[in-house]
Amino acid sequence: MKVANLIGSRFKEKPADCVIDSHALMVRGGYMKNVGNGIFSEFPILRRITAKIEQIIRQEMDAVGGQEVLFPVVLPADLWDESGRYESVGNELLRFTDRSNSRLVLAMTHEEAAVHLVREYAQSYAKYPFMIYQIQRKFRDEARPRAGMIRVREFTMKDAYSFHTSQEDLERYYEKCYQAYNRIFQRAGIPDVVTVASDSGMMGGSISHEYMLLTPVGEDSIVLCEECDYRANMEAAENKVVNEGGELQELECIETPDCKTIEAVCRFLGSAVETSCKAVVYQKNMDDTYVVAFVRGDYEVNETKLRNLVGEEIHPAEITQDSPLVAGYIGPYGISDKVEYYLDVTLQGISSLVAGANKENFHYKGLNLERDLENVSYVDISKIKEGGICPHCQKHSIAIRRGIEVGNIFQLGTKYTKTMGMTYTDENGKQQYPIMGCYGIGVGRLAASICEVCHDEYGPVWPITIAPWEIQLLCLRADDTEAKETADKLYADLQNAGMEVIYDDREGFRPGAMFSDADLIGAPIRVVVSPRNLKESCVEITTRDKSVKEMVPLENALEYISGLRQKLYGQIWEKVEDYR
Amino acid sequence: MKVANLIGSRFKEKPADCVIDSHALMVRGGYMKNVGNGIFSEFPILRRITAKIEQIIRQEMDAVGGQEVLFPVVLPADLWDESGRYESVGNELLRFTDRSNSRLVLAMTHEEAAVHLVREYAQSYAKYPFMIYQIQRKFRDEARPRAGMIRVREFTMKDAYSFHTSQEDLERYYEKCYQAYNRIFQRAGIPDVVTVASDSGMMGGSISHEYMLLTPVGEDSIVLCEECDYRANMEAAENKVVNEGGELQELECIETPDCKTIEAVCRFLGSAVETSCKAVVYQKNMDDTYVVAFVRGDYEVNETKLRNLVGEEIHPAEITQDSPLVAGYIGPYGISDKVEYYLDVTLQGISSLVAGANKENFHYKGLNLERDLENVSYVDISKIKEGGICPHCQKHSIAIRRGIEVGNIFQLGTKYTKTMGMTYTDENGKQQYPIMGCYGIGVGRLAASICEVCHDEYGPVWPITIAPWEIQLLCLRADDTEAKETADKLYADLQNAGMEVIYDDREGFRPGAMFSDADLIGAPIRVVVSPRNLKESCVEITTRDKSVKEMVPLENALEYISGLRQKLYGQIWEKVEDYR
Repeated sequence: MKVANLIGSRFKEKPADCVIDSHALMVRGGYMKNVGNGIFSEFPILRRITAKIEQIIRQEMDAVGGQEVLFPVVLPADLWDESGRYESVGNELLRFTDRSNSRLVLAMTHEEAAVHLVREYAQSYAKYPFMIYQIQRKFRDEARPRAGMIRVREFTMKDAYSFHTSQEDLERYYEKCYQAYNRIFQRAGIPDVVTVASDSGMMGGSISHEYMLLTPVGEDSIVLCEECDYRANMEAAENKVVNEGGELQELECIETPDCKTIEAVCRFLGSAVETSCKAVVYQKNMDDTYVVAFVRGDYEVNETKLRNLVGEEIHPAEITQDSPLVAGYIGPYGISDKVEYYLDVTLQGISSLVAGANKENFHYKGLNLERDLENVSYVDISKIKEGGICPHCQKHSIAIRRGIEVGNIFQLGTKYTKTMGMTYTDENGKQQYPIMGCYGIGVGRLAASICEVCHDEYGPVWPITIAPWEIQLLCLRADDTEAKETADKLYADLQNAGMEVIYDDREGFRPGAMFSDADLIGAPIRVVVSPRNLKESCVEITTRDKSVKEMVPLENALEYISGLRQKLYGQIWEKVEDYR
Repeated sequence: MKVANLIGSRFKEKPADCVIDSHALMVRGGYMKNVGNGIFSEFPILRRITAKIEQIIRQEMDAVGGQEVLFPVVLPADLWDESGRYESVGNELLRFTDRSNSRLVLAMTHEEAAVHLVREYAQSYAKYPFMIYQIQRKFRDEARPRAGMIRVREFTMKDAYSFHTSQEDLERYYEKCYQAYNRIFQRAGIPDVVTVASDSGMMGGSISHEYMLLTPVGEDSIVLCEECDYRANMEAAENKVVNEGGELQELECIETPDCKTIEAVCRFLGSAVETSCKAVVYQKNMDDTYVVAFVRGDYEVNETKLRNLVGEEIHPAEITQDSPLVAGYIGPYGISDKVEYYLDVTLQGISSLVAGANKENFHYKGLNLERDLENVSYVDISKIKEGGICPHCQKHSIAIRRGIEVGNIFQLGTKYTKTMGMTYTDENGKQQYPIMGCYGIGVGRLAASICEVCHDEYGPVWPITIAPWEIQLLCLRADDTEAKETADKLYADLQNAGMEVIYDDREGFRPGAMFSDADLIGAPIRVVVSPRNLKESCVEITTRDKSVKEMVPLENALEYISGLRQKLYGQIWEKVEDYR
């Protein structure tokens, strides 16, 4: 491919709407174009990268016995009725009707379709275990698409579903997939992916892991222990807090005019935020019942934990005039019994709290939950903080990092097979529900994530395994006959040797412009032919990551480049070996 | 891959809802499963076939300079507003809204997305010509999906778009794509594809071709001349009819009680259907205006031609009590001037016609259009018939055949670039609209079409280039140690030699059941290891099409199979050479 023919424009200016580097570079480099809110087209350069990623994924899925299938993008709502998810999933599931008013959905994940495909096939235990996967488009009606290809509404995803006759078998297979995923990320050139235990959310099931690429621009918070190997995502991380007792005080109702935030109250009363009780109010989606989460004033509510506890969808509350709550003055003592409330573990053991009095302009002082309330129990609905207690090693060694989720694996259990009536006959002739696992990787997000951790200020530095081309060949003076003929010949020789080359032989371009373009294309090996180099009968060979910069005699160029290419692949394959 | 592990069930009974053979065989063979109306999932065996077809298409598109891109499945309605197709396309375009009430469509074709992707890139003539293509899912809300994968609502399609600065350049490229398409069909193993001139319909543009696979179960009618090389689809085929003059008669209004069809009238009056004038009534979708097509009694209206003439969407009319038409008695003489009517060329030159009198229970006899009506002109809105006049060689040599459309190519002209404001600066600094071509192939439909023309009563006979596996190896008595060991070794040897093998080593299966499964899988080469064959130190090697059946000494088996495989590929490649 010649740069002159490559479809897509490259430019210098950072687009105003790009917040993270990978997004800006991929727009500047002609990788993608925004078509609508969270919807992108891929230019040829990106399509080459995603095709390579897809091929890596395919090979590793096949290596663990996966069989590729294809499910539809559009699914009848009936199928989602069977699993109950047509009702239970929020607005991110796009529901619509066709010309004959049949209800359809745009699949955002394919558990239902997977069970539908195999439930007649897999009626005997002898068919198990097995795994099917697809690489297919999905649509998820995200409220806030952001960061380019990192969080979009339409995306290409590899999703895999395994079926088992025992939890042990699922766990064995889960471990195999866990390693296959590690190999995929190694092969894609990003060794710095960590796995974290995660909340399974709407997927159902219990054990699940997310593969997180650590980067400050990640949108997920990852909880790491700096003393042991505990890792979890924020949603799943247990929050342990030990409060020192302190003195018991009398319960006192105090006027606190204009103190609508917990910080204002504490300032007014001269007490510490650490001994205050903050109320965060939600409502159930189904019937608008109020749900109040009480947490220690300096902690935040973990909505996922709260949602799991409540057992249904909730949203931040709107407190109206006639609601049983007094906004700004909500506390657990004397709260209306029309309200469902929860006390977080961060409140446990505090002898004397400041809390709302459920009365305009009044707060309590000296509230002792166990003395003043009946049947007190504590639940974990708060977010762990930097320096918090590790739930594994019990040390104050928790660090919070940012990451991008580049893959996930779930032990789904029998949620889908039970609701959808998929059974098999076991060795004893009994009907059983198969146990499922599922395994996802977003292809476009992975490409963008790699760009995010593999770039410099001038452009992406693609790992050779997924680079759009392995080699960028530049002819700096295409109007110079010797330079052009030499470069043309090298271009042909490299291609004949099976290498992927993007060739810049544009006439009338300044070297600076050609180098800028090469930086944005990000091929790992760069070969420069120019009249100046040819005076010394050399070509200049560099790597995009600047680790190599050599003047190589023309007659050795092909061999040198071939060796360098092998070396770059070798570096990646070496790391993959650790996960076999 | 072992048959024992292949996901998907095979069975004997023909499913009741399968009308055509390919559909029945692909359901019976575990290729696909119906998920909803016109929506299918692909089992691994079909996914292997579609992946091979995709690869063939990709290679041939790359060979004509195509660059692969990816457009979204879901597009904002705005984009379709730009081209005007949001309004103009019928119900097959699925329109819906997202969570924030933005209007979206499921793309059924991607002209708008293609122009959107390249309109900033291609602002100078120097960038032209170029072609982009994708292989992507599409959704078309068909009113009547049918015939399995032949006419579905969701499908994988390769769609390509080329951009040019002159009609000549488009035509040059169109010819290249024309040949690329021929190579694709040859490589996919179906030489019997013919190209026909077609109507471009809602795509816009003028010249277009359809690639038709001739088969009696095809849903399209193809018009062929048996004397010259004229070929067109029914929608595009010009209908020429020469009527012999005959005697002029007086115009007479006659009572024709209970004669509501043209046949009944002619019977009643004792006249020939060939001198009758039939009325077929439509209404415009926009305002329900009546449109009457008059054709000779023995011809049918060609709705596509009529629609193109009217210039907007029409539908079969509902004639109500208060309409200006008298159902069953409609004729051109004395027809209400609230009605738009057209006289077909089949009526030209008939001296004396029978026609409705626009009055309950009355018809005219002796109607001479040119004498009795004002400003008579004839238009071509009828379907050509078997034995009709070839518009090229003028002989009565027209034959009508059935076919499945497996691909199409269009010269789109500037319809999309004009409406969407895509321009480039030409050599003289003037702004111009690029001229487009577009080129489609449905992947799943092609797979099903190949099955339709390549099968016997027992299953598909896949061409080796797209077969799910090249070789099916059967071990007829897997409980026999020698047979099993021999087959296992051959399985390993074949795979090590780079061949694709599906291996049936299931114990306890009767040979008949294993052969039936092999027939449904349809691999072109079959190798049978059995204790009986091994007594003669042989394996049996056959082809699925029965052209080869050999007992081959075990020690020569690998070499023989390898040679046979090469031969089968060679037969296909030989035909491809004709199109280079």
